[in-house]
Amino acid sequence: MSTAQVVRRVAVFGGTHGNEMSGVYLVKRWLQNQEAITRPSFLTVPCIANPRAVERCRRYIDVNLNRQFTPGTFQYCMDVPSTAPYEVHRAVELNKKFGAAGEAFDVIIDLHNTTSNMGNCLIIGSSTDSFTLQMVRYLVQRSGLVCPVFLTENPASHVKMADTRSMGVHGIENGHYGPSCLRSVSRHGLCLELGAQPQGVLLADIFLRHERLVHTCLDFIHKFNQGELFPKETLEVYRILHVVDYPRNKDNDLSAMIHPELQDKDWHPLQPGDPMFLTLDGETIKYEGDSTIYPAFINEAAYYEKGIAFWATQKETLNVNELQVKN
Amino acid sequence: MSTAQVVRRVAVFGGTHGNEMSGVYLVKRWLQNQEAITRPSFLTVPCIANPRAVERCRRYIDVNLNRQFTPGTFQYCMDVPSTAPYEVHRAVELNKKFGAAGEAFDVIIDLHNTTSNMGNCLIIGSSTDSFTLQMVRYLVQRSGLVCPVFLTENPASHVKMADTRSMGVHGIENGHYGPSCLRSVSRHGLCLELGAQPQGVLLADIFLRHERLVHTCLDFIHKFNQGELFPKETLEVYRILHVVDYPRNKDNDLSAMIHPELQDKDWHPLQPGDPMFLTLDGETIKYEGDSTIYPAFINEAAYYEKGIAFWATQKETLNVNELQVKN
Ligand SMILES: [Zn+2]
Ligand SMILES: [Zn+2]
Repeated sequence: MSTAQVVRRVAVFGGTHGNEMSGVYLVKRWLQNQEAITRPSFLTVPCIANPRAVERCRRYIDVNLNRQFTPGTFQYCMDVPSTAPYEVHRAVELNKKFGAAGEAFDVIIDLHNTTSNMGNCLIIGSSTDSFTLQMVRYLVQRSGLVCPVFLTENPASHVKMADTRSMGVHGIENGHYGPSCLRSVSRHGLCLELGAQPQGVLLADIFLRHERLVHTCLDFIHKFNQGELFPKETLEVYRILHVVDYPRNKDNDLSAMIHPELQDKDWHPLQPGDPMFLTLDGETIKYEGDSTIYPAFINEAAYYEKGIAFWATQKETLNVNELQVKN
Repeated sequence: MSTAQVVRRVAVFGGTHGNEMSGVYLVKRWLQNQEAITRPSFLTVPCIANPRAVERCRRYIDVNLNRQFTPGTFQYCMDVPSTAPYEVHRAVELNKKFGAAGEAFDVIIDLHNTTSNMGNCLIIGSSTDSFTLQMVRYLVQRSGLVCPVFLTENPASHVKMADTRSMGVHGIENGHYGPSCLRSVSRHGLCLELGAQPQGVLLADIFLRHERLVHTCLDFIHKFNQGELFPKETLEVYRILHVVDYPRNKDNDLSAMIHPELQDKDWHPLQPGDPMFLTLDGETIKYEGDSTIYPAFINEAAYYEKGIAFWATQKETLNVNELQVKN
């Protein structure tokens, strides 16, 4: 049996990346009508995380906000140099308000979109936080939506590098996740990463699914606060292994694209020998690893500059402890 | 019978908008391997139209390049003020090289992408240029691809404004087409506007279709040069009527989204009473015009700032004259 403290404050962020539109417009709407996300047992606060990027409909102004929540940033807690990137200033502000030194929010729900066909992806950073795991399990079982779970926990012991020969394969340090992300500011955090949606486009279908997932989270939290016992369960997750880059030419520019047979196949098994890339000259490059992987974030627009064609993941089943609020 | 001059020079542009990736990568590849687009009877020149925007993977640096091909811009033909927007400088350069005062290219093929589900859209500006109409007719019949034709010819006499009540409806002057676009630099011009593709994403399927359409154009031009007689035909086109904007609040921000039943339905008839928008609060707004329209460019990312939710078009059948090269 795990216990967790009662939840007093929940923050829902949109616009952590300013061109991911369903979170932006949900939060704008909730700022006008906070009642829609109110539950009797806790406070819910909606917040546009990167307002300047939202205004300009860009991912960020100077640097990726979602990587600025680091001790290095918070050394500035009192006095950020005026020359620091805008997002460093903003991370310090957000940490002061929502972090442990401020109002100490208990849960952060961070709304994102991807150009990848990842459906209703739930991103978590830990396989041991029973509260978040039970919330995710609740979304999987009770939202009425298919919700693949992407686990960004450091996979050091799991990394298999057999398939690194002809492709760029980086370790996790070049990747896109970790303890520096916005959701790490609170005790429990979850990203709702919905796609496929182009940057700068608002799709009603995705907006409605994002809304439904947030409401289901809030329902879970209220039940938890009321003392409901959540029984022991298992949860299927996709744990990150490593990233795979596009084949590139001597100028570091793309020499191949995601193969049409891999495009939109996030969460589907990629077997040794399966088509992976198509060169600009029309040649197929196959996956030459020696084990099945489950690609995610296939062809995400924001990852070209990061050297990520997709994330390789492995499927795992986690045990989720029984959970009840701490008395 | 129409005649047209033999074609000596064809330019194929990619990256007129720097984040429309299939044209960018096709042109980059052809710059390395010009033979792929060579035909015996004319010269084909590939060109990245807006190289700085391509480098930064943005639509443009200062202003939309595809609206700078105006007499106002070309008054600078000798001496562009250094303070002028980058795209004005670039338009003057392109006009000097490809326009009538320079090498006088005969045909421009300009490769674009849209986030709208428009398929293999062919954009033309005139219902009377027999050469371009025959080339388009050839693409429709011979490319093996379904190719809707979008006609941007000034529709003044066709505009119906009965459905302007509750939606923002602008005249053509706020729209996105006209004689100021890049393809207007040559005698004959065509945009190949393929979608749906997110900005900054390269989809292999779209790349391959773009490539096939360019090759089919070049085949047509070579046959034309060789004296082939292209018989009288008819051609179905979608002629622009007006644009429809999103419902907006007092701050001019979106208060509604494209309705899920309209999303991705480019070229489908929209009848009076059909769902058109869904407000952020979940209410359906119906199309209240009094005649059927055919929407195109539904939910194009670049058009939010222009106040365009979609273009209303009407379906028409054009007569295409018999055509042969002038002796
Ligand atoms: Zn994001
Ligand atoms: Zn374009």
